[in-house]
Amino acid sequence: MLLVMTLIEYADASPDVREVYDDIMAARKTDYVNNFWKVLAHDPVTLRRTWNSIKEIMAPGALDALTKELIYLAVSVSNQCPYCIASHTASARKAGMSDAMFAEMMAVVGMANETNRLSSGYRVEIDERFK
Amino acid sequence: MLLVMTLIEYADASPDVREVYDDIMAARKTDYVNNFWKVLAHDPVTLRRTWNSIKEIMAPGALDALTKELIYLAVSVSNQCPYCIASHTASARKAGMSDAMFAEMMAVVGMANETNRLSSGYRVEIDERFK
Amino acid sequence: MLLVMTLIEYADASPDVREVYDDIMAARKTDYVNNFWKVLAHDPVTLRRTWNSIKEIMAPGALDALTKELIYLAVSVSNQCPYCIASHTASARKAGMSDAMFAEMMAVVGMANETNRLSSGYRVEIDERFK
Amino acid sequence: MLLVMTLIEYADASPDVREVYDDIMAARKTDYVNNFWKVLAHDPVTLRRTWNSIKEIMAPGALDALTKELIYLAVSVSNQCPYCIASHTASARKAGMSDAMFAEMMAVVGMANETNRLSSGYRVEIDERFK
Amino acid sequence: MLLVMTLIEYADASPDVREVYDDIMAARKTDYVNNFWKVLAHDPVTLRRTWNSIKEIMAPGALDALTKELIYLAVSVSNQCPYCIASHTASARKAGMSDAMFAEMMAVVGMANETNRLSSGYRVEIDERFK
Amino acid sequence: MLLVMTLIEYADASPDVREVYDDIMAARKTDYVNNFWKVLAHDPVTLRRTWNSIKEIMAPGALDALTKELIYLAVSVSNQCPYCIASHTASARKAGMSDAMFAEMMAVVGMANETNRLSSGYRVEIDERFK
Repeated sequence: MLLVMTLIEYADASPDVREVYDDIMAARKTDYVNNFWKVLAHDPVTLRRTWNSIKEIMAPGALDALTKELIYLAVSVSNQCPYCIASHTASARKAGMSDAMFAEMMAVVGMANETNRLSSGYRVEIDERFK
Repeated sequence: MLLVMTLIEYADASPDVREVYDDIMAARKTDYVNNFWKVLAHDPVTLRRTWNSIKEIMAPGALDALTKELIYLAVSVSNQCPYCIASHTASARKAGMSDAMFAEMMAVVGMANETNRLSSGYRVEIDERFK
Repeated sequence: MLLVMTLIEYADASPDVREVYDDIMAARKTDYVNNFWKVLAHDPVTLRRTWNSIKEIMAPGALDALTKELIYLAVSVSNQCPYCIASHTASARKAGMSDAMFAEMMAVVGMANETNRLSSGYRVEIDERFK
Repeated sequence: MLLVMTLIEYADASPDVREVYDDIMAARKTDYVNNFWKVLAHDPVTLRRTWNSIKEIMAPGALDALTKELIYLAVSVSNQCPYCIASHTASARKAGMSDAMFAEMMAVVGMANETNRLSSGYRVEIDERFK
Repeated sequence: MLLVMTLIEYADASPDVREVYDDIMAARKTDYVNNFWKVLAHDPVTLRRTWNSIKEIMAPGALDALTKELIYLAVSVSNQCPYCIASHTASARKAGMSDAMFAEMMAVVGMANETNRLSSGYRVEIDERFK
Repeated sequence: MLLVMTLIEYADASPDVREVYDDIMAARKTDYVNNFWKVLAHDPVTLRRTWNSIKEIMAPGALDALTKELIYLAVSVSNQCPYCIASHTASARKAGMSDAMFAEMMAVVGMANETNRLSSGYRVEIDERFK
């Protein structure tokens, strides 16, 4: 039994895992599958469900692809998830995030985390008009 | 000594608190100051610093006002802060967030929180190209 | 079976629960047992262990009682726990926390939450001298 | 004064620390004490209290040892605590967690983190029947 | 535009939303759809995806239904999500969680949250054998 | 465009960044600027705002410098932020935190995280007198 899950490379993957890898590469117009998926491949059901969900959620709609990537990265920063920060910084860059956009997103994340605690600690009641 | 901080209304506020209230209303083109500021007014130094920081951070720059509001709300949702969710839903609405944008932002926040835990629990190593 | 745990009042408590209630009231020089303990009393083993741990941890040592209460409250604010914020604001007040101390503690909690995210999102490497 | 706490090995430990180490090894039927305890040994009072609490909490009762380990690991994953994920993956494995169980636990943790944010952000009111 | 999302009752729901409601009631052998779904119905795509994911994840497999419910509830408690705690306490009860099981689960969640911080704050290095 | 922000050393810094560095070194009576600021320097506006806020917040007032450092560190431990734990352990040491103070602060942080979850999971109602 494994303590740490290894990377399942394309060559060693089962047909259903390969199918997901192929779809990831096609959707992202790349020949690279990042480690997250190669580890998740130990559970092909979760691999497929997670990929299908992300593909559905991240497709441009009322919000464009860059805005969605910025939100994904902002949440990952707020949760302090090292892998997600690294991989979603990369995907946000690919979607067009400039240095200035990154810096402004970071400033908003920092401030939101600060005022979230101020409002909780000061026990501020919700304004009638916000209810 | 107070267990719960009361709201400091404009009529009862000191001149330096009024100055911040005036600036909030001018910047937001409204005659309404929400409860967060009226409670924070118990500490005029924090009131002024927090307002000045938010005004600087939320001004349109490389990211427009709506994108910044969406990020602020996304972080507040991720942190599950009831007051901040209520007040920033209102301000994002004011900045142009539609029902569809709200729903898509929520879907991204939910998925980011899920994959943040998957990558941490599976102990996925950061890809060389993301370092 | 219960969805919500009721308060177990002294009059209805078993002897071992009463013994803990008595110790709480004696240690805190009060005749009041707050709701947290009256709900936890549904699990007498956890009630006793939790109270004994808190009594040991919160006793003055290298840090005085007020400093410990401020830290307890700061963490509860950071975690945005409504019950804990309410009850530990009360106990910090009792231990001598003034309005000014509360405001300064809150400012530190807010700022720490902000810079925690800035350092994580900017992926700052730990300085050699801090290792 | 120390910035980073060193490991206190058995040979260098005081009698009261050794007593806890001995009890850990006896309870776990192993001759290995993991780093967590060897660092916590810098504070013998916390070492003893923490160990006694864990021993009491993790003993089989209404829930068996494996279920308790799965819950412990699930919380550690949700909190994204690297040390705890590593050490509690090991102890859950020892208690009988298979690869399939790990994968299913992970899927639940991921989904709970997602729906927790959906319910908070959509501000869902608690159903009367759940109150 | 809405600040707070209303409940979409069956009678007012679109055919695709009704289809999900029907599936929820069939899978859970009940005629009750709880508020979470009735609010999520404002976004039928997220409603369907979330329900399908939960149905797949919570089906008995290597872990039985009760163990999965306990893990779901444990994570919701750890995240301090009021709605999720209320609704998943109810579903765990329905799956067979006794008062004693609830109390033991809670004790593990509390302890895991404590030791997660102890290991992070003491900066404990991961044991070679856990890597 | 950068995936990881480099350190901006004094020699390479713009005049406005140098001004902040100079102020940091003067306020802290040191010739060392730690990595956090050298990375934040990529966004001079955030660098200046963050430093000015921290300088204002951490100055002794109703709470002394050591108490503020202990609270800052306690929150960073609770948030499990590796960089912040490392850097604020160092600054708390500099402000006079002994090994015993560190250990007692850690015990309070651990316990607060435990009881925060117990009160949330047991759904304890706030006592009338704490409202």
